[in-house]
This record gives sequence, C-alpha cells and structure tokens, in this order.
Amino acid sequence: MQRPQPYIRKPHYYETDKMGIIHHSNYIRWFEEARVDYMDQLGYSYDKTDQSGVDIAVLECQCAYKSMVRFGDTVRIHLRLSELSNMRMKVVYRIEDADTGELRTTGYSSHCFFDRERNRPTSLKLKLPELYDLFEAQVETEE
Amino acid sequence: MQRPQPYIRKPHYYETDKMGIIHHSNYIRWFEEARVDYMDQLGYSYDKTDQSGVDIAVLECQCAYKSMVRFGDTVRIHLRLSELSNMRMKVVYRIEDADTGELRTTGYSSHCFFDRERNRPTSLKLKLPELYDLFEAQVETEE
Amino acid sequence: MQRPQPYIRKPHYYETDKMGIIHHSNYIRWFEEARVDYMDQLGYSYDKTDQSGVDIAVLECQCAYKSMVRFGDTVRIHLRLSELSNMRMKVVYRIEDADTGELRTTGYSSHCFFDRERNRPTSLKLKLPELYDLFEAQVETEE
Amino acid sequence: MQRPQPYIRKPHYYETDKMGIIHHSNYIRWFEEARVDYMDQLGYSYDKTDQSGVDIAVLECQCAYKSMVRFGDTVRIHLRLSELSNMRMKVVYRIEDADTGELRTTGYSSHCFFDRERNRPTSLKLKLPELYDLFEAQVETEE
Repeated sequence: MQRPQPYIRKPHYYETDKMGIIHHSNYIRWFEEARVDYMDQLGYSYDKTDQSGVDIAVLECQCAYKSMVRFGDTVRIHLRLSELSNMRMKVVYRIEDADTGELRTTGYSSHCFFDRERNRPTSLKLKLPELYDLFEAQVETEE
Repeated sequence: MQRPQPYIRKPHYYETDKMGIIHHSNYIRWFEEARVDYMDQLGYSYDKTDQSGVDIAVLECQCAYKSMVRFGDTVRIHLRLSELSNMRMKVVYRIEDADTGELRTTGYSSHCFFDRERNRPTSLKLKLPELYDLFEAQVETEE
Repeated sequence: MQRPQPYIRKPHYYETDKMGIIHHSNYIRWFEEARVDYMDQLGYSYDKTDQSGVDIAVLECQCAYKSMVRFGDTVRIHLRLSELSNMRMKVVYRIEDADTGELRTTGYSSHCFFDRERNRPTSLKLKLPELYDLFEAQVETEE
Repeated sequence: MQRPQPYIRKPHYYETDKMGIIHHSNYIRWFEEARVDYMDQLGYSYDKTDQSGVDIAVLECQCAYKSMVRFGDTVRIHLRLSELSNMRMKVVYRIEDADTGELRTTGYSSHCFFDRERNRPTSLKLKLPELYDLFEAQVETEE
C-alpha cells in the first residue's frame, strides 16, 4: 500500500490580511483542499463520492497556529487519517514550510458520512465499500 | 412607489489584504449582498426566487476602483436597476463612504433569468410576473 | 456593567456551497465579525487596538457543527469572554437560529496580545489598560 | 523570448455555491493567481515587486461568464498583457476547460503602478526597469 504524498500549496495574495499574513480562516479551507487531493491520490475522487449521494460532512474542525505563513512562502500539508468507523472518520493535519520544514499549523477535522437523499448519517462501509477499504488501509492511529 | 434604501456595510477584517485595504474581489460579493438586500426591501426575497426554480444568473460583472476602502470604514452601496427585459436585467452600483460620501467604487452586473429545471434561460415576465412587475417599477435608465 | 448584545448575521449567498448549506469555513469568519462587533459595543473598536500597535492574534480556533445554516436564515451569535490573563484570552461562541433559537454551532478562539513593533507577545494590561479593564469586567468563566 | 505557460487550476469545493457551480466572484481571484504565476514564470515574482515598495494596484476588472465551471473540472487560464505604459498596464484573460478547451470565461484587469511610500502612482519604467522590460517583451496588442 502506498501513502499519498503531502499537498503542496502556495498561499494566494487574496488570502493575506492587513497584518501581512495569511488570514487564519484560510487554513480550514486548505485542510479541505488537502482532503480532496488525498482522495484524488487514493484514486477515488471527492467528486465521485459526491455524485454517489454520500457527503463527507464536517462535524468539527480545529486549528492551532504555531507560526505565521506569508505570501511568497510555500507550505506542505501532511494529512493523516487517524480514526475510521462505519459512520465517521477523523483527519489530522500538519502544515509546515516547504523549504525549511518549520511547523506552521496543526489541526484536525471530524466527519460523518451522510446520505443526502435520506438526509441522515450513513455507513460508508455499506454505501461505498470500495472507498471504505481504501480509507481503512490508510488509517494511522499513532503519528 | 418607494425606492429601496442603499445597503450599508462595514468591511470585515478578513476582507483586508496585505496592502492594508479591502481586497478588490470582495466588491463583487458586496454587489451580490446589495442585490439580495434590495430584493428583501422590494418584498420578494432572493431566497423565494431561488425556491421557485428561477436563478438570477450572472452573465457579466465589472468594477472600477476609485479610492480605497479600509477596515474601520463604513460604506453605503447604491443600487440602480438600469435595464430590464423579459430575459435579462442590468444593475448598476455606486459605493461611497458612509460618512463623507466620497466615491469608492462603481460597477455593474448583467444577469439573465434561468430556469433551473429546464436548464435554460427563461422569461421572468412569464415565470415570476409579480417579481417582474416589482423590478419594472424600479427601472431607472438614467442616473 | 452592561453585557454587549449578540451579533445578528444573515448568511450571504456566496457563503453557500454545493451542498446547499453555508460552507463550514465561514463560521470562523463570523466568529471574527462577532468579536469586532463585541469590541464596538464595549466602546473600544478593534480598529483602535490595531492602530495602537497591538494585535489580538489568533492562537487556536475550533468549531463544532450541530445543525446546518442555510441561505435565507438569520443567525444570532452569542460571544462569551471565558478566560483573560495579561497575555491571553479565550472567547467562546454559540450560534443559534435567530427565529427558532435552535443551536447551530459552538466554538472557541484563543488569542494572545501581540506587540507588532517588537514582534512578540505583550501584556494587554500594560499596553492597553483601558481595554484590559473593559475585558476584565466581561469575563464569565461559567456559562 | 519565451511566452509563459497558461495557469492550470482545479476549482476548490469551498468555491462552489448552492447553484452547484463556482461562485462568480472567484474568477476575479483566479485572475490574480494567474498574474502571480505569470510573474513567477517571467522570473520576477510578485513578492519581489511588493518588497520593492511598488504595488500593482487594480483600477478596474471585468468578467464575462460564458459557461459554468463545476467542482471536479480543471481550467486553463490564458493571460495576455495587452497594454503597457510607464504608469499602467492591462491584462486580458481567457478561461477554458483544460480537457475540452471549451470557453468558460473572459475578462480583463487594468492596473496602475503605485509607490507605496509616496502613496501615489509611479512609473514602473523608472522604479523597476528590469520588470518593465520583461513586461514590454510580452505585450501582445492583438489576440
């Protein structure tokens, strides 16, 4: 089994704020980008999940800002699938400077699998077993 | 017939950029906010249009930046419905400082009425005649 | 001493996503809006703090999504200053539907006071004692 | 002289709206991303300009939406420097689907060169002659 590669991202000018740094709300968006890229690398695109009527809904997210990211930097976002059950998963993130490796941000997001048509949580294992298996092979409970 | 009031808006911190001003992309979003507020004031909410299966789709938008808006300012957005036909409309905007009246930005947006189910442009006059009449009473071709 | 009023907010169309709900990243921005409004109500604007060379930097934020917010809703954001020390503070948020009172989201943000010129954390009590006293009078450790 | 390559971009989930398409305001941001990438390719990063005290300020922007972009698509953004003078430049954009080549959006942005310290427009030719020369070699008045 192969581990997906970290997600590389250059901050955009419009993501800066008047403090001259990347506004803290954008990291939550980068986490989402990293999840989408991760699934692309697993060979099961987020879009495909979406079209199957299953949403990977966000239940909670958290972000701890360790040092600042500036326009002109490049960051590397490591993503680890830390928990998985039939109904839920948890993803842990680590953002570091791509050049120096210095830690910028840590965070996590918790998700449930949601059946859009029936409008309620669902079992990924039953609904999309192929994706469940891909996820299961990636779970790393310890860093 | 009563004219809707201008839309008053305080810029948000996260809308600033590292130049210390409001990032230019946000004005396009403020135009949308002003349209939504305008329709609320006309007594026919954007949400209601949306639920009827008609989208007021954006065909084009333009924005000219005359002077900068900063965090801490308050702006007043004047909206004028400058053109209306069965299938289309054009809206013109003028953003000024709420305290001094100084001109900040001008712009416009062009729209077509779109039948979501049939996936094609539609006649607002036929689909939502009540809204068409409300719009028609507001058209001001000259400033 | 008077408690500031909750912050009332109508979600914007551009804040929705293709799930038809408000994208989860926007709540972090609403928390910031609520903080800015809170300080306005305390009579010490965020802008004034900013101009004094002190940033209220974000160290951490968290958000738990309890039920979905949609375009057309109005939300009420309750803010509580739950911890304050010379160098730091913590703010707790509760977002509910303005009409029904139904809980939508809870969250918190942790901050340090930061001296921009010296580029390091600072004591709010020493730098802006007037603001520190305003905050101190608002601290509610228990809900 | 070599022409920079088009900018390739995958739309992000958080850029969608409840119509299920990319919200129109994001294209203005993509134009900026394409400009930044273009300057990187020219070997004179936007960041470097920024640090020299010269802002490439936006005077006007426009966007015409020809067909919709959806999450899961990839777009290719062609950028053409259509006008350049000592004080100003104009950039023209064409966004097409990266797979089919179908036209999605056209637009332009007009800029002035701005001396941040003196707080007024400036001559790029005088302030950053190296960058001016790079730009001049790229100007294409006709498509």
